[in-house]
Amino acid sequence: MFLAKVVGSVWATKKTDNLNNLKFLIVHPVNLKKEPQTDVVIVADVLGAGMGETVICAYGHAARKAIQPDHPAGLSIEAAVVAIVDKLDVDESQLKKME
Amino acid sequence: MFLAKVVGSVWATKKTDNLNNLKFLIVHPVNLKKEPQTDVVIVADVLGAGMGETVICAYGHAARKAIQPDHPAGLSIEAAVVAIVDKLDVDESQLKKME
Amino acid sequence: MFLAKVVGSVWATKKTDNLNNLKFLIVHPVNLKKEPQTDVVIVADVLGAGMGETVICAYGHAARKAIQPDHPAGLSIEAAVVAIVDKLDVDESQLKKME
Amino acid sequence: MFLAKVVGSVWATKKTDNLNNLKFLIVHPVNLKKEPQTDVVIVADVLGAGMGETVICAYGHAARKAIQPDHPAGLSIEAAVVAIVDKLDVDESQLKKME
Amino acid sequence: MFLAKVVGSVWATKKTDNLNNLKFLIVHPVNLKKEPQTDVVIVADVLGAGMGETVICAYGHAARKAIQPDHPAGLSIEAAVVAIVDKLDVDESQLKKME
Repeated sequence: MFLAKVVGSVWATKKTDNLNNLKFLIVHPVNLKKEPQTDVVIVADVLGAGMGETVICAYGHAARKAIQPDHPAGLSIEAAVVAIVDKLDVDESQLKKME
Repeated sequence: MFLAKVVGSVWATKKTDNLNNLKFLIVHPVNLKKEPQTDVVIVADVLGAGMGETVICAYGHAARKAIQPDHPAGLSIEAAVVAIVDKLDVDESQLKKME
Repeated sequence: MFLAKVVGSVWATKKTDNLNNLKFLIVHPVNLKKEPQTDVVIVADVLGAGMGETVICAYGHAARKAIQPDHPAGLSIEAAVVAIVDKLDVDESQLKKME
Repeated sequence: MFLAKVVGSVWATKKTDNLNNLKFLIVHPVNLKKEPQTDVVIVADVLGAGMGETVICAYGHAARKAIQPDHPAGLSIEAAVVAIVDKLDVDESQLKKME
Repeated sequence: MFLAKVVGSVWATKKTDNLNNLKFLIVHPVNLKKEPQTDVVIVADVLGAGMGETVICAYGHAARKAIQPDHPAGLSIEAAVVAIVDKLDVDESQLKKME
């Protein structure tokens, strides 16, 4: 899974039928150095993640299972928010050893 | 899923049988800084996305489910347009915080 | 799917049983700027793609479905040629807008 | 699979139901040159990997099978620790030949 | 699939049950320019690939099918050696055209 920050949302009226009523967020994958990244991933969300929140996102079956647990294979998505992060515990000494 | 801009289409007469009558677009993944990217992804499309439009594309099962909902496993594709974007709402303040 | 140019082939006698009699090509993913890329992908091919031809390749289930339509899960491959490109129609004005 | 070093853990109360009681680690993919990398992957762990340990992580079905062997498809994860590394045997002469 | 050179092996006593008795190799993905790459992939192997040999590796279902053909879904791996390369035939003129 990857860590990401919610920076926006997408509006799309013309879409695959099975995506109706789904909310799509724009997220930026983040790293521990807080370097800006410009990559964008579009993820479905049913947890209600808000702008600026840090989330854990998953790809593939994992994403579909999070959005539609009873029939994951029915969805045309492959990325979704699976958790909203409260706190990251990072051992700074481990990071230093790597430099 | 990823955001992309439609920049062309591909013609191919010799192809896997299950791809007959499918339309293939050339898209460029895009990011929020609008930096040019030269990566190219080939995606199937049944929504009728036009040249220059911004689309959401999905990979794998999600793509097959969008193109052939009744029998997704019958297709030899792994990328497809799943939505045509009307509007991107991006919180600029979140982007600035990241820089 | 990705666009690639066929640049070689691979010979391997010692391999997983289910790969016997399969042909493996060496391809370079290409982009619209024609920048040289050194990445190499190994793909299975049953369409007869020739040296120097541009092809569309797919990953995962899509690849197996292209090579062995009746029993895709029986194969230990995850990349294959699914189409041989006749022509790329690219809207140059769209590319310029991105720069 | 990829090699990674455990550098932290994630706390999240709001998450997909099927993730309750799962432990999520923050890991950095590592390479043989020990160059610092800032990429972050979030992985589930049931082996008890400790801070600073080197682990092998797997994606997709492999990850779900490691965390919940009896019903892997029930999980919304796509990355997990599958082994804790005791020792890496690297043939330095092979690395030199590549330079 | 990707081309890689075997550069080492991994020892791990604490691992997911279904990985017992499996051999894990450390491989470097390679490209045709023979540029050194520091990326590392961990792959399972039952073909007996030796140190310094060039191999074709596959991801996902393809990898599991190569290691445990009768019950691929029972494995927590997603990368494996599927062939040991005898010879690469590369058309140099095609590479030059790309530069």
